[in-house]
Amino acid sequence: MNIRFYNARILPLCAADETLLTGELWTENDRIALVGDPAGRPRPAFDREIDCRGNVLLPGFKNAHTHSAMTFLRSFADDKPLHDWLHEDCFPMEAHLTADDVYDLTKLAVLEYVSGGITAAFDMYYHVDRISDCARDTGFRFVLCGAVNDFGGTKESLRDDYLRLNRSHPLISYRLGFHAEYTTNESLLRDVAALSEEFHAPVFTHLSETAAEVDDCIRRTGMSPVQYLDSLGMFRYGGGGFHMVHPRAGDFEIMKARGLYVCTNPASNVKLSSGVAPIERYYEEDIPVAIGTDGAASNNCLDMFREMFLVTGLQKLTVGAAAADPMKVLHSACSVGARMMGLDDCDCLKEGKQADLMMLDLHMPNMQPENHIGKNVVYSGSKANVALTMVAGRVLYERGAYAFCPDPDAVYRRANEIITRIRKAEGR
Amino acid sequence: MNIRFYNARILPLCAADETLLTGELWTENDRIALVGDPAGRPRPAFDREIDCRGNVLLPGFKNAHTHSAMTFLRSFADDKPLHDWLHEDCFPMEAHLTADDVYDLTKLAVLEYVSGGITAAFDMYYHVDRISDCARDTGFRFVLCGAVNDFGGTKESLRDDYLRLNRSHPLISYRLGFHAEYTTNESLLRDVAALSEEFHAPVFTHLSETAAEVDDCIRRTGMSPVQYLDSLGMFRYGGGGFHMVHPRAGDFEIMKARGLYVCTNPASNVKLSSGVAPIERYYEEDIPVAIGTDGAASNNCLDMFREMFLVTGLQKLTVGAAAADPMKVLHSACSVGARMMGLDDCDCLKEGKQADLMMLDLHMPNMQPENHIGKNVVYSGSKANVALTMVAGRVLYERGAYAFCPDPDAVYRRANEIITRIRKAEGR
Repeated sequence: MNIRFYNARILPLCAADETLLTGELWTENDRIALVGDPAGRPRPAFDREIDCRGNVLLPGFKNAHTHSAMTFLRSFADDKPLHDWLHEDCFPMEAHLTADDVYDLTKLAVLEYVSGGITAAFDMYYHVDRISDCARDTGFRFVLCGAVNDFGGTKESLRDDYLRLNRSHPLISYRLGFHAEYTTNESLLRDVAALSEEFHAPVFTHLSETAAEVDDCIRRTGMSPVQYLDSLGMFRYGGGGFHMVHPRAGDFEIMKARGLYVCTNPASNVKLSSGVAPIERYYEEDIPVAIGTDGAASNNCLDMFREMFLVTGLQKLTVGAAAADPMKVLHSACSVGARMMGLDDCDCLKEGKQADLMMLDLHMPNMQPENHIGKNVVYSGSKANVALTMVAGRVLYERGAYAFCPDPDAVYRRANEIITRIRKAEGR
Repeated sequence: MNIRFYNARILPLCAADETLLTGELWTENDRIALVGDPAGRPRPAFDREIDCRGNVLLPGFKNAHTHSAMTFLRSFADDKPLHDWLHEDCFPMEAHLTADDVYDLTKLAVLEYVSGGITAAFDMYYHVDRISDCARDTGFRFVLCGAVNDFGGTKESLRDDYLRLNRSHPLISYRLGFHAEYTTNESLLRDVAALSEEFHAPVFTHLSETAAEVDDCIRRTGMSPVQYLDSLGMFRYGGGGFHMVHPRAGDFEIMKARGLYVCTNPASNVKLSSGVAPIERYYEEDIPVAIGTDGAASNNCLDMFREMFLVTGLQKLTVGAAAADPMKVLHSACSVGARMMGLDDCDCLKEGKQADLMMLDLHMPNMQPENHIGKNVVYSGSKANVALTMVAGRVLYERGAYAFCPDPDAVYRRANEIITRIRKAEGR
């Protein structure tokens, strides 16, 4: 499919600035063929031409940390701090999930992703082959993240997944990872570091999410989680930490030296009472910051607009009103996440890049007047403004309709069946 | 018009609980004629019957503090603390507004209100007669709030507005108020208190929004703003404070004794770096809490879903994960606000009450599965879920269309003309 978007405004987000183009965007199969002024360019045959009516195109959001299939626990596991939430609600309920459950619950998340302008997710969960099936069946882009820990997974299973899933399909890739320092014994951590060495590959994990986690690691090892993992050689090829709410003195230097990314998840962090990550400090230190929703069990929605406002709002609250520049935050949400996930071709709107984008409808009251379109997106934008979401040149979502799912109610029914079955089994 | 909603689920919110009815809701002209089970009730002739398909009806949001016409400064006055924002951006730009500008900019806000499920606004702004015209022309419900201060308004103008606008139209009422303690001299404050005595009427104002405001008042008067105003007899007939981020020792007792309401505006408070209001403490003290968006200049959107998540999220962050029960927050947003504004007939879905309500579409991924519909609304809900908004029995908004405004683009064009003209005049 070759698609022509015309009468468009375009936020390419090739840098963290408010560059705004006017003109057209052309796709050719899965890639962007033109951005901006089409004058003098030979016009190919288009399969479809879309009048944008002055609406804005921008790179899709990259949900850089999530557990997609946890949709089944939305509004079930609330109002508890992380430890109790995890051990009392998540682990016992998750133990009942089948591989097919994970497929169906991930599909529910994909509906939410594309209706909210998200074009890729960095998904840490189990039954990765069924998540991978979901990517093929929906056309959505998944970067799967290893999740080995003391309750499941080995060096061998992690290596197998890495080798089998990377390059298995253009929409699927796989990154080394483990659940967290506090759920993974040192021997298994050394195994992960050895795989990183073997593949020259970065490693990702939940990191320094709560103060208790950091204090406990210091008590056990004399080092913060960042320092301890680094001492095992975990980050020789880079990687990143999900959450990173509680860095300690010395962590920033390691993060810069190793080129680590931070993925911040502010809705989850406030709801679990984990704290506010020092995002402005990361920006100042030039530590790249991506943004994620975390899973629906803790957030509870998968909405990058809400995350963006929280990223900037919580910094303004804790640092000052000028903190967390909105264009930096938008760049984090759309572009930096792509690079964290290894999706270097999905980070901005530019010729030759993957056609992963959204169109936001500016003909809605929350986007008017147009004093500053980028700030309107970050400070006032809503998933209600998402008119179209495209992944790899395919329109997956358009004004309420899902190209890959003619009957979303069937997905909702399945999700309700799954949680009803598990509640019954657990007597809850 | 008599309307029948059927196949509905209904959150009446007559209390801060999750009572959920299944059945029908009937309206007769501007009032609710039936809620729940229609068995045995004589069936009137309906002008329209709406199949809710299992979607949920709940009382409309009451935006209990806003400055509607400030839409023109959306994404213009950002990233500054309150004092600089007010004096450098708001006051000079507002000085150029005409009465007709206020009408048009208020209409833009009404489009945003109804598309987000808001059915009434407590609006503190100038040119109140043109706001009142906007209520008549759109069918939206406005409670106007006096805003006298050292830069405009007198005891006489406040009395005139109060007498002229109250009971001028079923959708319009007027409450005594002044801008803030820090912008109003004591003589004028005593005038407002005297009017409160004359009409036995409650008084509303911006109150204890920033720490600097409170400290400054203590320096000048030896009392916190709440105590100082109370010492002038301001709250003999009740009333309330917008923001109330920084209560001091002794304030809670006065608030309880006078029956004062708090309207919290968390998005504005984080964005202007003003702080986090102690909402959980207000809940514990049984001080009634309403929720407002504040104006688009500070927020920057007029979205009660975002406010609700911030109310609960910021309490969880600062107090603990169990703080700010979601059903209390939903009750604050839909019901307590009505009582603060004097709209005792608009607070819940019950026979005889005003038909001010919204329908939320549950057939969307962010509302599934249905572990708890009320928590889904507070933790995952979005204005994208608003399928219909009704005020006084009239459908004002339905799936993207505005009954009172066939051409919203004309409203957007006017808003852009206004801000362009004023930017030019100010050379900005």
